[in-house]
Amino acid sequence: MRVGVDIGGTKTEAVAIDAAGAVLGEVRVSTGFGADGVVTSTVDALHRLADAVGVTPRGFESIGVGVPGAVDPLSGRVTHAVNLGLDGLDLGTELAARLGAPVSIENDVNAAALGAFHLLGRSAPSSMAYLNLGTGLAAGLVLAGRLWRGSRGTAGEIGHIPVDPAGPLCSCGQRGCLEMVASGSAVARLWPTGTSHPVRSLFEAADTGDVLAIEVRERFVDNVASAVRVLVLTVDVDDVVIGGGITSLGDPLLAAVHAVLRRWAVESAFLASLELPDRVRLAPGGLPVAAVGAALIGSTGTETGAAERKPA
Amino acid sequence: MRVGVDIGGTKTEAVAIDAAGAVLGEVRVSTGFGADGVVTSTVDALHRLADAVGVTPRGFESIGVGVPGAVDPLSGRVTHAVNLGLDGLDLGTELAARLGAPVSIENDVNAAALGAFHLLGRSAPSSMAYLNLGTGLAAGLVLAGRLWRGSRGTAGEIGHIPVDPAGPLCSCGQRGCLEMVASGSAVARLWPTGTSHPVRSLFEAADTGDVLAIEVRERFVDNVASAVRVLVLTVDVDDVVIGGGITSLGDPLLAAVHAVLRRWAVESAFLASLELPDRVRLAPGGLPVAAVGAALIGSTGTETGAAERKPA
Repeated sequence: MRVGVDIGGTKTEAVAIDAAGAVLGEVRVSTGFGADGVVTSTVDALHRLADAVGVTPRGFESIGVGVPGAVDPLSGRVTHAVNLGLDGLDLGTELAARLGAPVSIENDVNAAALGAFHLLGRSAPSSMAYLNLGTGLAAGLVLAGRLWRGSRGTAGEIGHIPVDPAGPLCSCGQRGCLEMVASGSAVARLWPTGTSHPVRSLFEAADTGDVLAIEVRERFVDNVASAVRVLVLTVDVDDVVIGGGITSLGDPLLAAVHAVLRRWAVESAFLASLELPDRVRLAPGGLPVAAVGAALIGSTGTETGAAERKPA
Repeated sequence: MRVGVDIGGTKTEAVAIDAAGAVLGEVRVSTGFGADGVVTSTVDALHRLADAVGVTPRGFESIGVGVPGAVDPLSGRVTHAVNLGLDGLDLGTELAARLGAPVSIENDVNAAALGAFHLLGRSAPSSMAYLNLGTGLAAGLVLAGRLWRGSRGTAGEIGHIPVDPAGPLCSCGQRGCLEMVASGSAVARLWPTGTSHPVRSLFEAADTGDVLAIEVRERFVDNVASAVRVLVLTVDVDDVVIGGGITSLGDPLLAAVHAVLRRWAVESAFLASLELPDRVRLAPGGLPVAAVGAALIGSTGTETGAAERKPA
């Protein structure tokens, strides 16, 4: 049985899947902070999962772990994960030593991309981009059924493509990055309410007719649609699946993005020919996409996708 | 022996390569216009090539043809190639019937991408984007040694990513597309001289200290660098090879692009970590990259790259 862990900033989710990729068990614990905290909460989650499915951690065939930060999948090292308080941690080695099973480490958006691809029933040669809209903005790419990390692991870092030379300064040092106009943190800056879900607050205010909220929402949705356009024009994936915290908004978010893409299709015969509205959907709600994706990555290292590990 | 043809707007280039991809023979003829003209000039080029290498066209193992336009590689149909006067032509079928050898049709930028990958000595798992700067702007992608066309054959169409909402209207119906600010036609519009090489005229005027020319050149080069950034942040290819008519400018063009990328690296630690200047070079000069790439594609249809056809 393969196991996947999604280490989030507040909670850690662990799942066990069978050979066909079906979820056998699932547990959730609070995420610790810093190296000791993260290792302890992850080990705790995996012991609980083992109990839940009636094995010991040594009985796990492989453990894949998704981490919100920069990782080196080959060495299992987390280079940098600011929300977890990690700055250089051999997480793969640490976990493997404590649990007695092979461990691989992956960026969480890449893991979620592979998980969504699997949970939506896709297989090679199909391709997909997973556009993660959370505090930041980044994408994961599954090309011809396999995770595409790129040459240095930075494929899908479209949040740092500048789209507005007069825009705000990004933490990356550039101005007007896509992440500064199409993410949760962007909305929190443009529509400050102090709530934990700024995009929901924005949509609610716009729905009540607040003129400024309507304008901020329009710009936000336009920029999300721009991210879709960059992905399709550059990589030409079959479809773009939008995931991440913001997608808890559900259909109103998808409807707004579809409306922008339909408007563009009226203005541009070229864009119309790409049929973008048909190619954008939300990630399956209520499913642990990143944990399942981490389990699919398992202990196989780079560029191994669901297609290869699913039974024929 | 495999044969490749690059049908350009003015000339048609045909090459024969051996099993290792070395060029055995090369001919050039003027390109005809319209369906009859293009078929006639292509057949003529291939008969001359056959004479030059001492065989008949029936002796060609495969014929790959690169066309500047929209093609369907599976059927060998040219959907649309405005510079050749083609609007729906079963070029593959026509040529195969007249020459007695299997023919495959590919977009010319894709063919050039694969040709450059091969001529630069690359092989899987290496990846490359070929950024074609000619009248327009488009890219071809070679991922893990294989041509990546995308799900609908539009991978690399980054020329139609808008970068300036206040920019000029593009023929695609959008405003401020990358192609409108970083291509030969863009420079011809911004720096009208009536010469056949507007970018060369622009660089020469800027070198003499013309203030407006310096400004136009700066914007042009900035936008070329932006195209590089889009490709690396989205697909994270090992490197970006710039080709197309504009690259006859040679080192001054590359130096100018490198200077922009180095400036960005000073402003952004994130961009600095990507080491973009080390990852951008020009296509090998004086070599028939598109014709060689077309020969490598041969008669194998979709998603077949050099890596697969090169001897081990």
